[in-house]
Amino acid sequence: MSSQLNTVPGWQEAVADKRQRLQGLIPKEWIIPPIPEDQQNVLDTPKDCGLLTDRELEITNTPDVSVILQKLANAEWSAVEVTTAFSKRAVIAHQVVNCLTEIFIEQALQRAAELDAYLKEHGRTVGPLHGLPVSLKDQFPIKGLETVMGYAAWIGPVAEEDAVLVQLLHQAGAVLYVRTNVPQTLMWGETHNNVFGRTLNPYNRKLTPGGSSGGESALIAMHGSPLGVGSDIGGSIRVPSHFCGLYGFKPSSHRIPSYGIVNSLDGQDSIPTAIGPLTISLSGVTAFIRSILNTEPWRYCPNTVPKPWVQDEYLLKNHGEGKKLCFGIMWDEGSVKPQPPVLRALGMTKKALEASGHKVIEWKSLRHAEYVAIARSTWLADGSEDYNSCLTTGEPLINSMVPGADPNDVPAFRVPRKPLTAFQQWQLNKERRALRKAHLDRWEATISETGTGRPIDALICPVAPYAAVPHGQTRSSIYTIIWNTLDCPALVIPVTKVDRHVDIKPSRESFWSDEDRAVHEMYDSEICEGLPVGIQLVGPTLLEEAVLGAGEVVDKALKAV
Amino acid sequence: MSSQLNTVPGWQEAVADKRQRLQGLIPKEWIIPPIPEDQQNVLDTPKDCGLLTDRELEITNTPDVSVILQKLANAEWSAVEVTTAFSKRAVIAHQVVNCLTEIFIEQALQRAAELDAYLKEHGRTVGPLHGLPVSLKDQFPIKGLETVMGYAAWIGPVAEEDAVLVQLLHQAGAVLYVRTNVPQTLMWGETHNNVFGRTLNPYNRKLTPGGSSGGESALIAMHGSPLGVGSDIGGSIRVPSHFCGLYGFKPSSHRIPSYGIVNSLDGQDSIPTAIGPLTISLSGVTAFIRSILNTEPWRYCPNTVPKPWVQDEYLLKNHGEGKKLCFGIMWDEGSVKPQPPVLRALGMTKKALEASGHKVIEWKSLRHAEYVAIARSTWLADGSEDYNSCLTTGEPLINSMVPGADPNDVPAFRVPRKPLTAFQQWQLNKERRALRKAHLDRWEATISETGTGRPIDALICPVAPYAAVPHGQTRSSIYTIIWNTLDCPALVIPVTKVDRHVDIKPSRESFWSDEDRAVHEMYDSEICEGLPVGIQLVGPTLLEEAVLGAGEVVDKALKAV
Repeated sequence: MSSQLNTVPGWQEAVADKRQRLQGLIPKEWIIPPIPEDQQNVLDTPKDCGLLTDRELEITNTPDVSVILQKLANAEWSAVEVTTAFSKRAVIAHQVVNCLTEIFIEQALQRAAELDAYLKEHGRTVGPLHGLPVSLKDQFPIKGLETVMGYAAWIGPVAEEDAVLVQLLHQAGAVLYVRTNVPQTLMWGETHNNVFGRTLNPYNRKLTPGGSSGGESALIAMHGSPLGVGSDIGGSIRVPSHFCGLYGFKPSSHRIPSYGIVNSLDGQDSIPTAIGPLTISLSGVTAFIRSILNTEPWRYCPNTVPKPWVQDEYLLKNHGEGKKLCFGIMWDEGSVKPQPPVLRALGMTKKALEASGHKVIEWKSLRHAEYVAIARSTWLADGSEDYNSCLTTGEPLINSMVPGADPNDVPAFRVPRKPLTAFQQWQLNKERRALRKAHLDRWEATISETGTGRPIDALICPVAPYAAVPHGQTRSSIYTIIWNTLDCPALVIPVTKVDRHVDIKPSRESFWSDEDRAVHEMYDSEICEGLPVGIQLVGPTLLEEAVLGAGEVVDKALKAV
Repeated sequence: MSSQLNTVPGWQEAVADKRQRLQGLIPKEWIIPPIPEDQQNVLDTPKDCGLLTDRELEITNTPDVSVILQKLANAEWSAVEVTTAFSKRAVIAHQVVNCLTEIFIEQALQRAAELDAYLKEHGRTVGPLHGLPVSLKDQFPIKGLETVMGYAAWIGPVAEEDAVLVQLLHQAGAVLYVRTNVPQTLMWGETHNNVFGRTLNPYNRKLTPGGSSGGESALIAMHGSPLGVGSDIGGSIRVPSHFCGLYGFKPSSHRIPSYGIVNSLDGQDSIPTAIGPLTISLSGVTAFIRSILNTEPWRYCPNTVPKPWVQDEYLLKNHGEGKKLCFGIMWDEGSVKPQPPVLRALGMTKKALEASGHKVIEWKSLRHAEYVAIARSTWLADGSEDYNSCLTTGEPLINSMVPGADPNDVPAFRVPRKPLTAFQQWQLNKERRALRKAHLDRWEATISETGTGRPIDALICPVAPYAAVPHGQTRSSIYTIIWNTLDCPALVIPVTKVDRHVDIKPSRESFWSDEDRAVHEMYDSEICEGLPVGIQLVGPTLLEEAVLGAGEVVDKALKAV
């Protein structure tokens, strides 16, 4: 196997063939006329194109996953019509933001028909996700389909069996129908590869939908899917959720089953990938997590902790039943100040919580640069051998997400490093452990300030220092990586949209770092106008239920104002 | 830092000083007259030496930890007198089997007096382990004391704070009073190092008490401690328990807090150390695990899963309330046939369970050689850099446990390997994951045979292919390593003692492997006469409570016959 990055003929043909096959899977009658190249906001295209019936628009515009599930469960909507509606809308979305990598609507409709028949015959659903269309990031093998994950070399072979999560989603009643785009290597906060090309942000196609689960975020923002499954090693669920106005949840890394997925840096277990949902409503996050945990995934996935869904934790029984909570708030991590819309979203959250009778105390940033440095050293410990082993066709490594960039212009956080020895990796693991201990101690120490007799119930912080940015302009994901290094569950809640009249660029003369200056300088309220802005809500490792319970409190408080 | 194994003057002086200081910590009046060099069984020395009062003998001979705890809790025995009794007996044991590395009886008695005062004043105990003397393997730092762990280079510096487990034991009411011996590097099934020398088996001092928690097993077998804490990366709790007739429990690696311990191969997180107890009774195991989990250790240790003690799992609520269970039994792992006493212990267990109304089905060995190979490759991935970094004083690396052996005569499983890269370690992690998945699937598949509608409730297997062996004769710990690679909780239950009239050496003509032949040939029923023999009881990862619950069933069944 060669790791040389030359360009030999061959891989382009495989890519052309794959693209053609993908295009061929779109039903002819669902092909829409091209929209103007200079139309940047395409959120209304599904409605405007005229392809969806009123009922299909009603179904796909439903803003709450629990409502969809309820209407499916009581047969007000059939699984077939819900699947048809979301399939159509997914395919429409794909034509304007290039979000799909696999389309298998026929199988989906067949499964939906089975579900309808079951419900009719037995008077009960197959499982808690009965009939819900669920999209999947291009990492979850499905028997008989390719899993390309943005590598030309992976075109061709088909999976011999489903990933464990695919099996469990099926068992829970979900309908799988499309898979979605990712960046080559997955280790980018944007979504572009040599096989499927670039995915665009439906709020503004000049911007990125984030990454690496950017096919998901673009698709779900267009309501081409009510809920999708992504993965997150440094922000790959959370950044796309934030950039596209979605709820997104990165659980701890051993809560949702990962066995059988394809992955980047596979076998790197020190700061590993976590699997979680991106979705239109918080009810979607909860339904997904609860449903999967109730299948006892640890019986099938050796990476999953045997902890069932704990309803009492979700109801915040040990957090004063959710009354008079105390949240921490971290406005910034000390090296990069968030842009005005992000700070405003944090402020709105604080105010809303206080108006609902909760307390919010300051959380000062602690050693965050170290969290990020450890993560990068760990992910680059192989000297890029993993990446190179996937480029055997001669397909070039993508070194920049800037459209048309010089391929030798590599951002600092992507510069390859000398391979580490296993012993050196062990030393990094020791440093990571010390950081995790420092964080635990810090969390516990808040007991003295909360007034509740408990440490803070959850921590509020930015998802990124900015809303969605132009292609190629995302920078180091410091605000999300922290929680991967610490393996803490982190929930993204959409809070507001950029308002250029309010979110005025401040004048700043001194900066905390070069990165800080760059982030300040790139802010342009005209470009950002109308973009969604979210916050992160973080809790202790493996206490997903409590984070979701606290998330309900935050979401309700925000919606009440 | 030099990794050359030369012998420079200096380290021997540090060792001499340390030994002298240790000797100085033994109260003069507790020094016993030397016993005959050729007296091999020293189990009765504590009684015979005449140093213990009748009441002290009664206290230390109590065969059940729960009885000790009860008498402490109702003030029938004071913490001071219990601490005094076990301290005395520990020091006596040390003089005949060389098991201690640190002695801090004064601090222990002070703590015991505090506990007595607390109970008197408040009418309740400090915690569930109130007044129980607990010994510690030489890996648990205690503020103000050295933690030498068998390395000359570690003599001198004292700990600035307690390991998390030490803090939690203190909080639970335990009295810490001694630490115990280990082998240099910890990675041996025996107990010998250049600082403290060799620990002997009190059943027969020509034999090893096992390792690496061999100071613990020798001490507890002599009732110099009712319960000790060890660690286990490949059998280091279980082999010593088996060799010394104790109950021993290796939980999953992230259940009992390890933060703050000193360790070998520190930072190696792929097949890591687990912390657990060695003790005189199953009630001791349960008391330890339950007490520690009830302190919520995950709030203080970043390596601990936030799973509290689940009483329903312990009561086997999901296992038919403990009635009509179905156990798997693995007679051997296919490459090394256990010696007659071990096979007899397994047979006795099967018979006892069947007589109590349970079912026992065959479990065929599966890929066990691979489990062991992965573990060895992982532990040796650093090319011995970790060991060498601890030998900076010129102290030689111990390459053989054979007394007086040629230091260049290295057993196969200890031969140093070429260092791996981090990327190579990642590939090993992938193999380990695949093995864990194969095991899960196999476990689930037993549903078709159990007749309970569940997979087997637990698996019975050997701890080692032999009972205690002469110093230097332990071999690869295949039967225990399997469960470290799979990270399954494994409980050792003492079953019987070798009876030379029953456990007759069979005549065998063909062998499964060289190892098999060697294990067969080394069996000598005369040497083994009277040695304890245990079995292992194994369950799924992180389901410690169910293994202990099933352990009660097995223990009761064995005691009933």
